[in-house]
Amino acid sequence: MNNQMIITSLLISSGLNLLFLLAASVLISKRGGFSFVVYKILQIVKVKMNQGNMTYPPYYQHKKSQFEKLPKSNSDIIFLGDSITDEGEWSELLGNPHIKNRGISGDTTSMLQNRLETILDSKPQQIFLMIGINDLVYDEKSPEAIVAGYKQILQQFQAKIPTTQVFVQSVLPVNNNITRYWQNPHNILKLNSYLQELAQEFNYQYIDVFSHLVNSENQLDVKYTSDGEHLNGAAYLVWRSVIAKYVGYFEVANNL
Amino acid sequence: MNNQMIITSLLISSGLNLLFLLAASVLISKRGGFSFVVYKILQIVKVKMNQGNMTYPPYYQHKKSQFEKLPKSNSDIIFLGDSITDEGEWSELLGNPHIKNRGISGDTTSMLQNRLETILDSKPQQIFLMIGINDLVYDEKSPEAIVAGYKQILQQFQAKIPTTQVFVQSVLPVNNNITRYWQNPHNILKLNSYLQELAQEFNYQYIDVFSHLVNSENQLDVKYTSDGEHLNGAAYLVWRSVIAKYVGYFEVANNL
Repeated sequence: MNNQMIITSLLISSGLNLLFLLAASVLISKRGGFSFVVYKILQIVKVKMNQGNMTYPPYYQHKKSQFEKLPKSNSDIIFLGDSITDEGEWSELLGNPHIKNRGISGDTTSMLQNRLETILDSKPQQIFLMIGINDLVYDEKSPEAIVAGYKQILQQFQAKIPTTQVFVQSVLPVNNNITRYWQNPHNILKLNSYLQELAQEFNYQYIDVFSHLVNSENQLDVKYTSDGEHLNGAAYLVWRSVIAKYVGYFEVANNL
Repeated sequence: MNNQMIITSLLISSGLNLLFLLAASVLISKRGGFSFVVYKILQIVKVKMNQGNMTYPPYYQHKKSQFEKLPKSNSDIIFLGDSITDEGEWSELLGNPHIKNRGISGDTTSMLQNRLETILDSKPQQIFLMIGINDLVYDEKSPEAIVAGYKQILQQFQAKIPTTQVFVQSVLPVNNNITRYWQNPHNILKLNSYLQELAQEFNYQYIDVFSHLVNSENQLDVKYTSDGEHLNGAAYLVWRSVIAKYVGYFEVANNL
């Protein structure tokens, strides 16, 4: 390598350094400048300090603490799950004031187990459960591992609230052309077939909502979503129509 | 500069480049790999294509479309606002099945204006409005600019649903020691004083919730929040106690 080449290389290399630095600066300033960097570093330190001492997201903490403080009744009809449940106005959709939304966006089977006590305490009339898609999509758990956690939830129901009617709802499809979180449709189908078996094992009603929201490729139909994961109003109307006959079953029975 | 120095510089510079590349690779792979990069590029292209043609976040689109499809009644009591309203289980907190949650996380005064029609159509009994903090914190609008948009909302109420009881609730404090979005407490106080004047101008009841949730430094008290912006169950109980006497006023009046 002659001097000329070395100096050219140095110039190119330094230029690249400058470009990278510039890109990093733009990225940092877009995210909120120096205070953002400090915040991120503190966050990492906090996460390291809390390892093995799981902290839950603020939204989860807030919702959990609110649920603990709200009145409970054994006429409650509990909609239990993650964002898909959380975002539905269930008591309005079904015209039933006993319905209470106990969905928390981002929830997984293990996060749900951590807040099950409040649900068990109320000894509700019915529970409509839909959980597990975040285990699959974000935590990348296998369907088999998810079902193991799911089973522990159903065991708690069976042991502590044996007279509560529990409905095991299928998890829902995603649309891989829109979502940020690509998911093999085969895994979702597999998880649902496990959930169906599990419901049978516990003598709980399994409800297939999945099939009512998919296109011919087992993907969430684009007419039901803007992001490939969550649901618009049309989807909630479909879901309502699938479960309506099960909701408030006891009340109807008591009125006969 | 002698040859030795040039070569040393080149080595350092190349090393730095390698480090930068490594950091970029780690960042990209943590965010979801190559498909993430493609997704981000497509997103940027989409945003460029939509400039001047505002698109709303999927959560907003989904919620708006659900609200449009839900049954409406002139006995409705509407809780209208952003995440702070969205995250409250209002009908349970106040034990009133006429209460409907029409909060959408992330909403600003202009996003609210874009979905006002569904609210106006129902000619509700009451509206409890809390909006504006996202204008201040995320959009960095001045209190004066926010009030201008707020006024347009109240003008719509006055013109189209003149018999509806409207309650203008103060925006709430944040806690700058916890939140990611530092905010000058003076701006929040200023916005609230404008909102109070505006309510008076329209002959609507102003409700100060702010003062019930602050510490001595006009910051959101840490006992009410995990993230410095949003509220836990204890905070919602305080808020409930502040507004309870106003909720369902007409029903009480009719029963006298």
